[in-house]
Amino acid sequence: MSRIIRTDANANLAAAVEYHGFVYLQGVVPADTGADITGQTTQVLARIDELLEIHGTDKTRLLQAQIWLKNISDREAMNQVWSAWLPADGAPARACVQAVLADPGYLVEIMVTACR
Amino acid sequence: MSRIIRTDANANLAAAVEYHGFVYLQGVVPADTGADITGQTTQVLARIDELLEIHGTDKTRLLQAQIWLKNISDREAMNQVWSAWLPADGAPARACVQAVLADPGYLVEIMVTACR
Amino acid sequence: MSRIIRTDANANLAAAVEYHGFVYLQGVVPADTGADITGQTTQVLARIDELLEIHGTDKTRLLQAQIWLKNISDREAMNQVWSAWLPADGAPARACVQAVLADPGYLVEIMVTACR
Repeated sequence: MSRIIRTDANANLAAAVEYHGFVYLQGVVPADTGADITGQTTQVLARIDELLEIHGTDKTRLLQAQIWLKNISDREAMNQVWSAWLPADGAPARACVQAVLADPGYLVEIMVTACR
Repeated sequence: MSRIIRTDANANLAAAVEYHGFVYLQGVVPADTGADITGQTTQVLARIDELLEIHGTDKTRLLQAQIWLKNISDREAMNQVWSAWLPADGAPARACVQAVLADPGYLVEIMVTACR
Repeated sequence: MSRIIRTDANANLAAAVEYHGFVYLQGVVPADTGADITGQTTQVLARIDELLEIHGTDKTRLLQAQIWLKNISDREAMNQVWSAWLPADGAPARACVQAVLADPGYLVEIMVTACR
């Protein structure tokens, strides 16, 4: 059996799980729910950068992304931050839908899978 | 081409699909929709245990989980069953959102990816 | 580092991303939102066929699928097209929930993971 590496685990989830060169991140939510969609997306992507770095990879190696928005009308504003953050030629396969999230203050949640 | 192993397939889906050491489970739903969120979550996790065992693995090897709740207000009650079921140091990367599920009686649906 | 192959990338996403024999497709949406659920599902599956072929694989090698429906009541009609499209013994692990999608005209969005 190959080794599984888990980062920042609590009782319910690990922030990241690595196996066989694949890195699965949790659905990352904003730390400061007082921010607007631009600010919350920026926070989420910064945390994703941080988690990818812990696992020896970065945003140039994204494979798949799922994005949940509290309000689908925030999609364009989220996309502006998202596309500015993505590296050239680095876009993952993606789905983005509206959903009620765990905390009413969360406007966005992003879960990515990357590789090393 | 490596072999793909499919368990309990019907016309629409397989309950589990294994390839190259990765095991993808269907979104598992409760068998008895008369149960409350605690009972339904318990049923779902028992079925996940069963499917993982068929594929020669178990809940210590979870990589990713997606959880859909009919009512996001059931999250704490679901988490109690979920966290008690998870092995120490075995939490997967996870996202949990509210969604309308296939049957109005379903309160929870859980889809996991594991490895052997 | 192994090579990542991205197909039809734009500023926000790639239509398909391949790594290490795994092929991740975007959440595919219908091209013609004037069609009903049967027509939209047919369009989506034709595009999935196309993307899989670009990556040297096909619908006999599906591992996982996520399906979002604008109206969960369209599930049976979608399933009819879906199950007719699936090859015998080729069903992936699947979850299907209702969600508000990016465009109000989209009735269905399907995201699959396959292997070569």
